Amino acid sequence: MTNEDAAEHFTILARDSHTRARTGVLHTRRGDVRTPAFMPVGTQAAVKSVTPDEVRSTGSEIILANTYHLMLRPGLEIIQAAGGLHTFMAWPHPILTDSGGFQVYSLAGLREITERGVRFRSHIDGSLHELTPESAIALQLGFGSDIIMPLDDVVGYGSELTRQREAAERTHRWLLRALEYFRTMVDTAEPSRPWVFGITQGGFDLDLRRRSCDFVAGLPVDGCAIGGLSVGEPKPVMLAFLEEVAPLLPEDKPRYLMGVGSPEDLWLAVAAGVDLFDCVHPTRVARHGGLYTPEGRVDITSSRFRSHFAPVDETCDCLTCTQFTAAYLHHLFRARELLAYRLATIHNLRFIQREMERIRQSIAEGRFVIELEEFRARYRPADQEAAQVQRRRRAGSKSGEGVGDIDE
Amino acid sequence: MTNEDAAEHFTILARDSHTRARTGVLHTRRGDVRTPAFMPVGTQAAVKSVTPDEVRSTGSEIILANTYHLMLRPGLEIIQAAGGLHTFMAWPHPILTDSGGFQVYSLAGLREITERGVRFRSHIDGSLHELTPESAIALQLGFGSDIIMPLDDVVGYGSELTRQREAAERTHRWLLRALEYFRTMVDTAEPSRPWVFGITQGGFDLDLRRRSCDFVAGLPVDGCAIGGLSVGEPKPVMLAFLEEVAPLLPEDKPRYLMGVGSPEDLWLAVAAGVDLFDCVHPTRVARHGGLYTPEGRVDITSSRFRSHFAPVDETCDCLTCTQFTAAYLHHLFRARELLAYRLATIHNLRFIQREMERIRQSIAEGRFVIELEEFRARYRPADQEAAQVQRRRRAGSKSGEGVGDIDE
Repeated sequence: MTNEDAAEHFTILARDSHTRARTGVLHTRRGDVRTPAFMPVGTQAAVKSVTPDEVRSTGSEIILANTYHLMLRPGLEIIQAAGGLHTFMAWPHPILTDSGGFQVYSLAGLREITERGVRFRSHIDGSLHELTPESAIALQLGFGSDIIMPLDDVVGYGSELTRQREAAERTHRWLLRALEYFRTMVDTAEPSRPWVFGITQGGFDLDLRRRSCDFVAGLPVDGCAIGGLSVGEPKPVMLAFLEEVAPLLPEDKPRYLMGVGSPEDLWLAVAAGVDLFDCVHPTRVARHGGLYTPEGRVDITSSRFRSHFAPVDETCDCLTCTQFTAAYLHHLFRARELLAYRLATIHNLRFIQREMERIRQSIAEGRFVIELEEFRARYRPADQEAAQVQRRRRAGSKSGEGVGDIDE
Repeated sequence: MTNEDAAEHFTILARDSHTRARTGVLHTRRGDVRTPAFMPVGTQAAVKSVTPDEVRSTGSEIILANTYHLMLRPGLEIIQAAGGLHTFMAWPHPILTDSGGFQVYSLAGLREITERGVRFRSHIDGSLHELTPESAIALQLGFGSDIIMPLDDVVGYGSELTRQREAAERTHRWLLRALEYFRTMVDTAEPSRPWVFGITQGGFDLDLRRRSCDFVAGLPVDGCAIGGLSVGEPKPVMLAFLEEVAPLLPEDKPRYLMGVGSPEDLWLAVAAGVDLFDCVHPTRVARHGGLYTPEGRVDITSSRFRSHFAPVDETCDCLTCTQFTAAYLHHLFRARELLAYRLATIHNLRFIQREMERIRQSIAEGRFVIELEEFRARYRPADQEAAQVQRRRRAGSKSGEGVGDIDE
C-alpha cells in the first residue's frame, strides 16, 4: 500500500476551475462509485424503512454502516456466519463502515477513553464493551467492509484546547496502530483488498487541524477523512474550517467529510474539494415529514398540503413522486401510517442523489459555479420548518420504545 | 337490481362435492376477483407498511377500506377532491368498504345507538359524528367504493338475548333504509354501478341467525355478509355457527364472512361455503413478528431464528423470502427497524394469497378435501406464540403515540 496505489483506485475526471470541486470515480472492489458521492446511512444493516433495491434505485452506489451498532447487534459472529455484511443485508454494492469512534463519543457518560482504546456501555443492555484501534479494524474486516475507518478520538464543539490537542494526537497514535494492524491482516498488494482511510481531527483550532492534515497526508492511507466537524458548531464555523482544511489533504486521494449533510452543505463542501459524504439528514428528516424540493425543504404535515393533489416535487422521478400526491403523503403522516416513512425516505434519497448527479455533471461540463449559484438562489433550507422537525424528533425519541423506531 | 342481476356478476365455476366449498369469479366494475378471495385491510387508505404495487404482487385482487376511519381522516371532501379513494391511494383495483358499524361497536362507551343511527366520538379528537343507514351509503358512494356495506348493529359475544334480537332487527330495518337510499342514488340498471351487500346478524342465537339469513336472502342485494362473528367468541363456536348459517344464504350470490381470518379459519370457512374474507390478522401479526409457514405460525423474534440463514418459508416466492433470510428478519425485528414490518407483511399476505390460490385450484380440481386435510395435518396455529404476539401487541398499543403506529 503506497500513495501510488491509492492514486490508482481513485480517478479524477474533471476539476472545476473556479472552486476546488472535482469529479471522479472510486474503483472499489465491489464496483465503481462516482464522486462526489453521498452515502445513505444504514446504521443497523438497513437504511431505515427501505430495501436495498430501493436504495439502489435512488442512485446510491455506496452506503455506510455503523461498527458500533453492528458489533452490539447482531454482533460480528452472526454477520460472519451470514457470509459478511453484504450478504446479511442483501446489498452487494460497496459499503463503508465507520469505526465506532463517533458513536462512542455520543455516549458521553457511558464511556472511558484511555490510550489503549475506549470502554463503553451498550445503549441496548448496559453491557461493557471495548474498542481499540486494532479491534475496530478487526471488526470491519470481519464484516467484509470495503472502506474501513480507523478508531478516532472525537471532541465536541466548545471543548478545551488541551482536550482538542489530546484528541488529535491520540487519533494520530491510534491511526498508526490501526495501519500497523491492518497491514498484518491484509495483503496490501492484493487488488481486491478493502481500503483503509485516515481520519483528521483537531477540533476547532486551525493550527491543530493543519498539523492533523499534514500527519495523515504523510501516511499510506487510501483516502482522507475530515472528522470532528458537524458536532454541534454553527454552520458558518463548519464551512470556514472546511475551506481551510480540505485543501491540506492530498489532491490525489478521496476526501471524505464525515456526517455531512443537508443539500445546502453538500454543494458547499463539494466546492471546498470534498468527494465523499454520509449523513442521516435526508433519511431522518424524511421520517419526520421534512421533504426536499427544488425550492427548499417542506413540512409535509403542514395543512397546506392537505389538498395538494400533485407530487411533492413535480420535477422528481422517484417512486413516491411518480405514484403518490403530496395530499396522500400528508394523510399518511397525519395517520401515522408506516408507509409514510418509506415514501418520504425514497424521495429524499432520490432528491439528494439527483443533486449529486447535477454536481458531478456540472463539474464535468465546467458549469459548477453556475449550478451552485442557481441552487443557492432557489433552495431555501427552511430553518423554521427544520426547527419544527427537530422538536418533533426529540419528542418522538423520548417515547421511543413502544413501536417501530423511526429515530437513528 | 334483482336477484337475476346479482347472479350475473358472480359466476360459480366449480363446487366441491364433499363440502359446501365453491370457486368462482366476482365480475366487479374494476375487474374480476377470483373466489374464494381474501381482502387485505387498508384501514386508513393504506395497507399498513406496503405500497399498492406490493399488495398486488402478493396476489391480492381486492382490498377493504374502513368507512369509519376514512370519514374522520382524511374525510370525504379530500377523498372526493382527490378523484375518489382509488386515485387517492393509487389502488386502481376493486375496493370493498365496510359501513363503520363494526368500528363504532368497538368504540363502546363513546357511542350512542338510536333508531336513527349511531352517534359517536372520534377516537382522534373526540369530536362528535353520526352515521345513519343513509349517510353510510352516501359516504361509500362518495369514496367510489366498488362494494358497499350497509350500516349494521353489531353485538359482542355474551350479550343478552334481548340485545341480540334488538340488534338483528335494527340491522334489518337499517338495511331496508340503506337499500332504499341506494336505489335513489344509483341507477341499478347501469352495469358499472357499485354493488351493495346485505349483512346478516343474530348474535349467537341460531334461531335469530336463521331469521336474519331469511330476511336478507329475500332482498335484492348483490351479496350477503355474515356479520357479528369473530367478536370474541371461542373459535369452535364461530365455526359451528358458520356451518349452520352459510348454507342459509342464497346459493347464487357471493357470501362474505367479515373479519376472518387466519389461515386455519379460511380453509374451514371456505368448506362452509364462504367466498369472500377480510381480516387484519395476516398484516397485524406480521408487524409483531408472527410469520406464517407451511408448518404454522412462527415468532421470528425467537432466538431460534438468530442464525437461521435461510428464508422463513423455503417454499415461498415473495420478495421477502426470495431476498432475505430469517436471521436478517430476526435482526430487523430485534433492532426495531421499520423495514421489518413491511417484509413480514409482504410475506404473510403472499402466504395467505397462495393458500387462497391452493383453495381455488383444489376446488376446481375436485381435491379440496384432500388439500384441506393436508393443510390441517401440517399447519400448527401456534397458540403459544400467538399469545406472545398478543401480549406484545397490547404492550405496543399502550405506548402507541410516540412514533409510527404499527397497530390498527
